[in-house]
Amino acid sequence: MSSLSPPPVPMELHAVNRRKLLDSLRRHLSVSDRPLHGFVFLQGGEEQTRYCTDHIELFRQESYFAYLFGVREPEFYGVIDIGSGKSILFAPRLPADYAVWLGEIKRLSYFQERYMVDMVYHVDEIDQVLHDQFTGSGKPLLYLLHGLNTDSNNFSKPANFEGIEKFERDMTSLHPILTECRVIKSNLELQLIQFANDISSEAHVEVMRNTKVGMKEYQLESMFMHHSYMYGGCRHCSYTCICATGENGAVLHYGHAAAPNDRILEDGDMALLDMGAEYHFYGSDITCSFPVNGKFTSDQSLIYNAVLDAHNSVVSAMKPGVNWVDMHRLAERVILESLKKGSILVGEVDEMMVERLGAVFMPHGLGHLLGIDTHDPGGYLTGVERPKEPGLRSLRTARELLEGMVITVEPGCYFIHTLLSAAMDKPKTSKFFNREAIDRFRNFGGVRIESDVIVTVDGCKNMTNVPREVGEIEAVMAGAPWPLKDATH
Amino acid sequence: MSSLSPPPVPMELHAVNRRKLLDSLRRHLSVSDRPLHGFVFLQGGEEQTRYCTDHIELFRQESYFAYLFGVREPEFYGVIDIGSGKSILFAPRLPADYAVWLGEIKRLSYFQERYMVDMVYHVDEIDQVLHDQFTGSGKPLLYLLHGLNTDSNNFSKPANFEGIEKFERDMTSLHPILTECRVIKSNLELQLIQFANDISSEAHVEVMRNTKVGMKEYQLESMFMHHSYMYGGCRHCSYTCICATGENGAVLHYGHAAAPNDRILEDGDMALLDMGAEYHFYGSDITCSFPVNGKFTSDQSLIYNAVLDAHNSVVSAMKPGVNWVDMHRLAERVILESLKKGSILVGEVDEMMVERLGAVFMPHGLGHLLGIDTHDPGGYLTGVERPKEPGLRSLRTARELLEGMVITVEPGCYFIHTLLSAAMDKPKTSKFFNREAIDRFRNFGGVRIESDVIVTVDGCKNMTNVPREVGEIEAVMAGAPWPLKDATH
Repeated sequence: MSSLSPPPVPMELHAVNRRKLLDSLRRHLSVSDRPLHGFVFLQGGEEQTRYCTDHIELFRQESYFAYLFGVREPEFYGVIDIGSGKSILFAPRLPADYAVWLGEIKRLSYFQERYMVDMVYHVDEIDQVLHDQFTGSGKPLLYLLHGLNTDSNNFSKPANFEGIEKFERDMTSLHPILTECRVIKSNLELQLIQFANDISSEAHVEVMRNTKVGMKEYQLESMFMHHSYMYGGCRHCSYTCICATGENGAVLHYGHAAAPNDRILEDGDMALLDMGAEYHFYGSDITCSFPVNGKFTSDQSLIYNAVLDAHNSVVSAMKPGVNWVDMHRLAERVILESLKKGSILVGEVDEMMVERLGAVFMPHGLGHLLGIDTHDPGGYLTGVERPKEPGLRSLRTARELLEGMVITVEPGCYFIHTLLSAAMDKPKTSKFFNREAIDRFRNFGGVRIESDVIVTVDGCKNMTNVPREVGEIEAVMAGAPWPLKDATH
Repeated sequence: MSSLSPPPVPMELHAVNRRKLLDSLRRHLSVSDRPLHGFVFLQGGEEQTRYCTDHIELFRQESYFAYLFGVREPEFYGVIDIGSGKSILFAPRLPADYAVWLGEIKRLSYFQERYMVDMVYHVDEIDQVLHDQFTGSGKPLLYLLHGLNTDSNNFSKPANFEGIEKFERDMTSLHPILTECRVIKSNLELQLIQFANDISSEAHVEVMRNTKVGMKEYQLESMFMHHSYMYGGCRHCSYTCICATGENGAVLHYGHAAAPNDRILEDGDMALLDMGAEYHFYGSDITCSFPVNGKFTSDQSLIYNAVLDAHNSVVSAMKPGVNWVDMHRLAERVILESLKKGSILVGEVDEMMVERLGAVFMPHGLGHLLGIDTHDPGGYLTGVERPKEPGLRSLRTARELLEGMVITVEPGCYFIHTLLSAAMDKPKTSKFFNREAIDRFRNFGGVRIESDVIVTVDGCKNMTNVPREVGEIEAVMAGAPWPLKDATH
């Protein structure tokens, strides 16, 4: 059923992450003539119960803490001593009956070995240990994590514990530096993202092959999650699965509790499946679009190939130094040209670009950084403003590409009633539309094609491996193996 | 792959629930000579994001709100007008771009029809609507939900909204009355709990059949969740799956993030699988225990049958009026007698009971109320104290059984190192142990057998349908259909 199995997780990955932060923070402090001591101090996540009940939600570590320490258990604190470079974990002191209900109470040495840190103490020893370790004068200094997440507009919550008032606190230096560390992936990180891509790609193929008219959308979600967990050990998905068919394909973030993947697949539908598994915190984010009956109509091919051309054009153009906003515009242009070629739009593409017509068909951004978070932080450097124009303002990053960034390439073309009506009514854009053709696509939904791409020294590499060409998809849905054996495809 | 499919959900169920609360609350007010007006006023749950990110956790409605209104969408408020009996929902006013990102903005009439309520308004109209509807004098009175959950020791958070200070508030009357409504299940509720049991029972059988030495524990979890979702439409489980094999079977709540079902199944292991699916909020909670290689050893049979006898003895004795603490003691006694018969314990069972030896082998309670919450509320009436003795103090209810209660029957027998060592060291209990026999079971883990049982007018009915006898389990694991066709089993 799968050629894959979950690879061992190298905890060295997190030691490398810590070393990278330490180097970067020390450079920053040196440049500002600040002393090289104090502690990077992070609080790990806590288990949450559901409302007033004792139902415990399955815990998933906070992402910055996961990045530096890789700890899967809740209620830890983590420290990096800026002076010595040593790392310290603080584990919760568990009550004796934990052993009866929740499992063996592990020795501190277990955590030291597992997470490859220098020291492990209990949480109630933080105050004492940090005062003992501090080599500077005055109150020991804590670098706390506090800063804006530019996707959610929420601020990370700085660590807290009883006794924190006995420490000096720096709330501004750490966040931008640590965030920037996360933007550039190490080889060890890339291996995990690659595995998440491998198992998710395989799961997408499995779903594609087993999709049949008459099924419910959620059955595709179930097959995906099962394949990823059963054969890839992925207990979490990177995000709630979007299994949109028919006109649901025009709902960009379909699949949540109020729109819960519950439509029945009908003959003639396109499916838009945006699903990605997470392995040891590192995620994937992949979208496949295909006709649920296994054969593209000419209209479906037209839209699908418009998006595929955009996807491929962007991947061909990506390399360090390229601006992501330009890539977004490139994708828009390719899509608009295809829609014109297909007689859905009429007029000059240059003029359409000026009027932001691309954003009518693709209101979301071309792609986003990917890592421990699906929308990995660092998309906007501090002080950089978001673009304001339709489509562009949805971009989760407007940066120049750097070697080592992993970014999704996810152009789409959707027939969204509210956006189409508004654009067809608007004097400046109404002339571009072939109304008869648009009518034909009223209930089409949409197509999205999304791959995870790593920027290399002189180009990029697509980490996702799923059927993309119309012929490939039809062959796989008809039972051909993937990758196809016949090289003529 | 399954004979089942998800049944239609009768929204009338929630109208019946509302009517029941209304009747009960009116009776309560009449008895206290209080006026029959004012509003039951509940706030539904809200979506949660993960820490500072924009990762949205899959929303599941707060349970009291689900009970009264059945609403799957977040950010609603719900009202029952005590005077007129009319029900009102308040829906969030969604921004225009919701239609692009998250789906069609439904008309209020959609919710009115779907949820069978009398009126629907927007959340920002609460203040005005309730003042208009109120027929009493003075400030309109809101009955808010505030009270203790006796499993979590958390308090439910009373509803809040801008303008609430213009209302009188009663914070004490509603919680005990609404909780007691939830304790006794209606026929419509029982149908959903039965379906959750049917699909979960079938999924357990599927897992049992496909369990092989060399697998990872989480693969059993994956198979269970896939079967429940694929064929039963169950997107949520009632709780995180406990897939314990070998000595993990002695960890009562194994399977959480710090003990994540990641052991490899070894020949000779027992598996203890505690897994239940949830359908339209209503849950199931089922445990099967079996040897991973499909054949019981004599030691495994000994412990398994001790627990099965306890399970069956309790089910045989259950009926209205029976005290649950007595049932717990009955289960303990049956298990202790079996352990004595098997020469694991020596001495008088009566004396063992006095010394609470049962709690060494079964430190958890015999069972708990089950419904929209896995640990459904109402286990302890206000003012009733928990028992203090080992084992008994873990009981989530100490009530007398009533017709219409759904309660789990889940005796277990575990070899938990810390508890065994303590009891074998303790002068009053050390004499009961056959140390050689105990040594044989050091890494046995445990056995739990758990069914969901509805109390009927003169007895009870087991809603769970899985192989329970040793012969049944061995037959099904060897490939026999379930239910067995051969009546001699």
